[in-house]
Order: sequence, then structure tokens, then C-alpha cells
Amino acid sequence: MDDLTEPLIQGDRRALSRAITLVESTRADHRDRAQRLLDGLPDRQALRIGLSGTPGVGKSTFIESFGRMLTGQGMRVAVLAVDPSSTRSGGSILGDKTRMELLSRDPRAFIRPSPSSAQLGGVARRTREAVRLCEAAGHDVVLIETVGVGQSETLVAQMSDLFVLLLAPAGGDELQGVKRGIMEMADLILVNKADGELLSPARRTVADYAGALRLLRRRIQDPDGFPKALAVSATTGDGLGDAWDQMRALADWRRDHGHFARIRAEQARDWFMAELRAGLLARLDAPAARARIDAMGRDVAQGRRAPVAAAASVLDWLDRAGAD
Amino acid sequence: MDDLTEPLIQGDRRALSRAITLVESTRADHRDRAQRLLDGLPDRQALRIGLSGTPGVGKSTFIESFGRMLTGQGMRVAVLAVDPSSTRSGGSILGDKTRMELLSRDPRAFIRPSPSSAQLGGVARRTREAVRLCEAAGHDVVLIETVGVGQSETLVAQMSDLFVLLLAPAGGDELQGVKRGIMEMADLILVNKADGELLSPARRTVADYAGALRLLRRRIQDPDGFPKALAVSATTGDGLGDAWDQMRALADWRRDHGHFARIRAEQARDWFMAELRAGLLARLDAPAARARIDAMGRDVAQGRRAPVAAAASVLDWLDRAGAD
Repeated sequence: MDDLTEPLIQGDRRALSRAITLVESTRADHRDRAQRLLDGLPDRQALRIGLSGTPGVGKSTFIESFGRMLTGQGMRVAVLAVDPSSTRSGGSILGDKTRMELLSRDPRAFIRPSPSSAQLGGVARRTREAVRLCEAAGHDVVLIETVGVGQSETLVAQMSDLFVLLLAPAGGDELQGVKRGIMEMADLILVNKADGELLSPARRTVADYAGALRLLRRRIQDPDGFPKALAVSATTGDGLGDAWDQMRALADWRRDHGHFARIRAEQARDWFMAELRAGLLARLDAPAARARIDAMGRDVAQGRRAPVAAAASVLDWLDRAGAD
Repeated sequence: MDDLTEPLIQGDRRALSRAITLVESTRADHRDRAQRLLDGLPDRQALRIGLSGTPGVGKSTFIESFGRMLTGQGMRVAVLAVDPSSTRSGGSILGDKTRMELLSRDPRAFIRPSPSSAQLGGVARRTREAVRLCEAAGHDVVLIETVGVGQSETLVAQMSDLFVLLLAPAGGDELQGVKRGIMEMADLILVNKADGELLSPARRTVADYAGALRLLRRRIQDPDGFPKALAVSATTGDGLGDAWDQMRALADWRRDHGHFARIRAEQARDWFMAELRAGLLARLDAPAARARIDAMGRDVAQGRRAPVAAAASVLDWLDRAGAD
């Protein structure tokens, strides 16, 4: 058994941190150790909540208030970030824990910034494994947050039990700014900043989104009234309790109707297929393959080889190299 | 030499049709023959024009008028369609040649509907090869049209020398409806239906898009004034001559400055890489692999195997199977 296993199961935050660092590493020995560690962990379940919100909707404040409400009820909460842009922007969205000052000092909370990785696929693998580590460490809720760059929302939805979209109050025209595909993934739309002068606009925005949600195709795993739009204020805390009640109600309903287990089973299968494809394609990155592909790519660019014939030749070579 | 080679080079339409049918086939012997045929063809170049326009902008009428103008000048024109949705909608966008009645009977024109294929990757490969066949058959211009579903516009841009976006006159608010990524790919935006009552709205729309294009990052391969927005009317023919002049001017400028060859070289390299990845992933579809993956997928779904470990086990098996 790995040295980290026991403290991790006991909920030791440093052990969890170190385990996630192993999971994020690209070193082969780290990956091997991470895999053995993951294989030896008990199968605990947290409620996995995917949370998307663009900058400006008050996502940090929401996570801070919502997370504190849950820890205040005795629950343990982990926050993970999926931000494929973090390499480009030079820093993770969660890099600075001062973003959530109170929650980061809360002994019942665990916050982990997004790893800097050039590839969304790499972030996906790491996050899926980090979620499992957080579950094994005894967290009741794992919040997986994303800024919604490119495909990151789809990815987060694919590893969550519930998907929550956080929005700011807006004029009716801006409703179309939310991509239809994102709307269709959302189980709950929360319109934040529903306080002070923005209370009325927030309520109108909720009504607009509620109307838009009714127009979307009904999903079979949804009970009456879902997907739903609600107003919340991360600043005053208004509506956060209701939002949590709705999340729990939906999760319970899905559990009772067998959808919860079915969704997780499908997600596990998708993860397996993604790993399989990534693992196969990784063969193109081995140094010997890389050199051959680069040389062939130059031939193709200079018109000395046809693209399809060049690809066939590299595939043949890979077969022979594999057979050696 | 293949029986089709000589008639194809002579510009025989039936030979070209049959060659494209080979290219579209999934049968191994057809694919082999198609590959040999492609390898034995002379390296002729047409101007490849990618054309995107959603239903309702008058794309068929535009292709008919624009194509007839070119054939009227003695040029030979091929029209290919990329429509990944054609399987879903039950028929190709070009399936019915009555869409372009005059052009389809024009001896200097060749029109080929989109193949029905479930996968965009398959459509991409076939279209790239069909473009080469049309070039070898002596066409001067190959129009590659798409309805702009999903990633099809990116795909078409990746196999074209020029990318043209066809739009209808619209209110200023609708400008945002065109995705920024598509705007960034366009070398020329043509606002169609600039005739009769729509002439003024069309001109305003042109001005709106011209303004929006100026805000986009300047591409190094663009001469002054490009990307450009123009008004055209496929019905009256107004502006079509100017549009063609602009396309030629841009292509000539790129040729003179070495960008044309560079872009084609990059596209050939991208195609090679896409073929390589697709060829590698196709190993997962072999019957023996399929059976193993399905069984493993069930184990993963039922929680008997961890996704990552299951993927590693299949990859090991593939290695051993390859070595046999």
C-alpha cells in the first residue's frame, strides 16, 4: 500500500495535495505510482457538481459563499478547476487562493487550482482522477468549476452528477449570448447578483431563462420542473439554501430512479474510451515516431509524398516497430 | 495504369464520377484502387474556393450564377459539397441537381453531391481526394460548398485556397449571429440579394461587416483591404464579376508573395497528420478489438474495472496482437 493511502483516506489535506500532484505529473514513475494509489482507494461517492460561469458573474464569490454554507452544515467540500486556458493566460483561475479567502482557510474545504497543461485532454484526465482522490478523502461535495473556454464545459458536464450554470443579470437580448449547447447541459441556471439594484433585472433574467429552458427538449432523467432557473445572491447569501435544496432534490430523484448510477456508468465508459484513444495517439509522440513523422511531414509539405500514402507508410512503420 | 486515369485526365465526366465513387467507398479494394489512381494522376492546380452559407442566403442560386459566369468565360468549374448532416437529414444538400439546373447541364461544369457519411472525418478525406480528382480532370475552379454545420466550415477552409462567406442582408443586431471564428476564416464576405427592396439593407450589412472585419486581427498573408465585404445579387448577377476579380486578385497576390504555396504545404501536412491519426484510431474498430473493447467497456460501466486500468489493458493487448 502507498504511504499516501492511509492519510488520504483519513482526509489529510497534505496527502490529498500530494496525491493530486502525482496525478498531474507527466513523469512515468509518478503516473505509475498515481495509478497504483488510485487502484487501492475505497470507492466513496461525493456529489459531483459541475459549475460554469464566465468571468464577471461572481463565480469566486459564489463558490466561497456556497462552499461555506455547506461546510457550515458539517459537510466537507472540495473545489477543483478546469481551465484549459491557464497556460495561455499564464496563471490558473484558481491560482490565487485569495480569490476565496475564507473557504481556503476552512478546515472542511479543499481548494485546488487548475493544472497548467497545454492540452484539454490532459486536464480532463487529471481532473477525473483528482475527483476520485477527493471522494476517497471523504468529501461530500466536489465542485468542478470552469470558465467555459472552448470545450471545457462539455468536459466538466461529462464528469459531473449535476451541471450548474452561473449567470449575471442581463437584458433580454443577451440571452442569446449563452450557447444553446450549454443551456442544454444545465440542470440548474443560477442568476447571481440578485440583490440591491440588480434584484429586479435578476428576476427578469430568471424568467427569461426559465422560458428558454422550457423550449429545450425535455431530458428523460429530469423530474418535473427541471432544468430550473433561480435567482441567488452570493453576497447576501439569498437563494443559496434553495439552490442547494434543488440540487439535492434532483440528485435524490435521479438516484431513486436509477439515472444517477446509469449516468456514472456511461461517464466511466466514456472516460475509458477517451483514455484508450489518447493512449493510442500518444504513440505518435514517442521520439522515434516523432522523428519519422516530422521527416515525412516535410516530404508531404514539399510535394514529394502524397498525404495519404505518407500516413500509410508511417502506420506500417509503427506496426513493424511494435513487433520488434 | 488504371482504366479511369486516361479518360479522367481528358476531362471525361463519367470517369470523374466513377473515380469519386471509388474515393467515397469504404470497401478495401475500392480504397486501394482509389489510392493507386490518385498516385498516378498529374499534379494540376485549380483555384479551390471554399464557400459557406446557411440555408436561406441563396447559396444554390449564387453557385448557379457564379459558376455559369465562369464557364461563360471558358473556365471549367467543379462543385463539391461538404455536409456532415446529410445522413441525419436523409439527403444531401446537393442531392437534387435541380437546385442548380442550368449549371448541372453545363458541359463545362461538374456537380457532385455530398456523400452520406456519419463521420465528418470521412467526409473530409473524401472531399480532399475528390478535389484532387477534379484538379487532375482539368477544372480551373473547384467550389467546395458547406452549410456550416458544426466544424464543417473549418474543414472546408482547411482545404481551400480562399474562403468565402455568403450572407443575406440583415439588421445590425444580427451581425453577432455570425460566429467570430467563421469571420476570422473568411477572405471575402458576400452579402447576397442586393437587389430590389433589399439593396439598401444589403449595402448597410456590407458596411457593418466591413467594420467588423476591420476589428479582426490582420493576417500576414492578406494584402491591403482584405478580408473584404461586398454586395452581390445572384439573381441579377450584379457584383459577381467584381467578386471574382477580388478572388483572383487575392489569389495572385498570395501566389506572388509565396503564401499560396505555403498555405497548400501546410494543408498537405495537416491532411497527412489527420490521416495518420484516423488510421491509428481505426485499429480500435477492427472486429477483434471491437469485441474486446465492448467487453471491457461493460466491466468499466459496472465498476469491475477502473477506466484508466482498462484502457491500459486494451493498449497492451493491441501491442501483442500487432506483434503476432
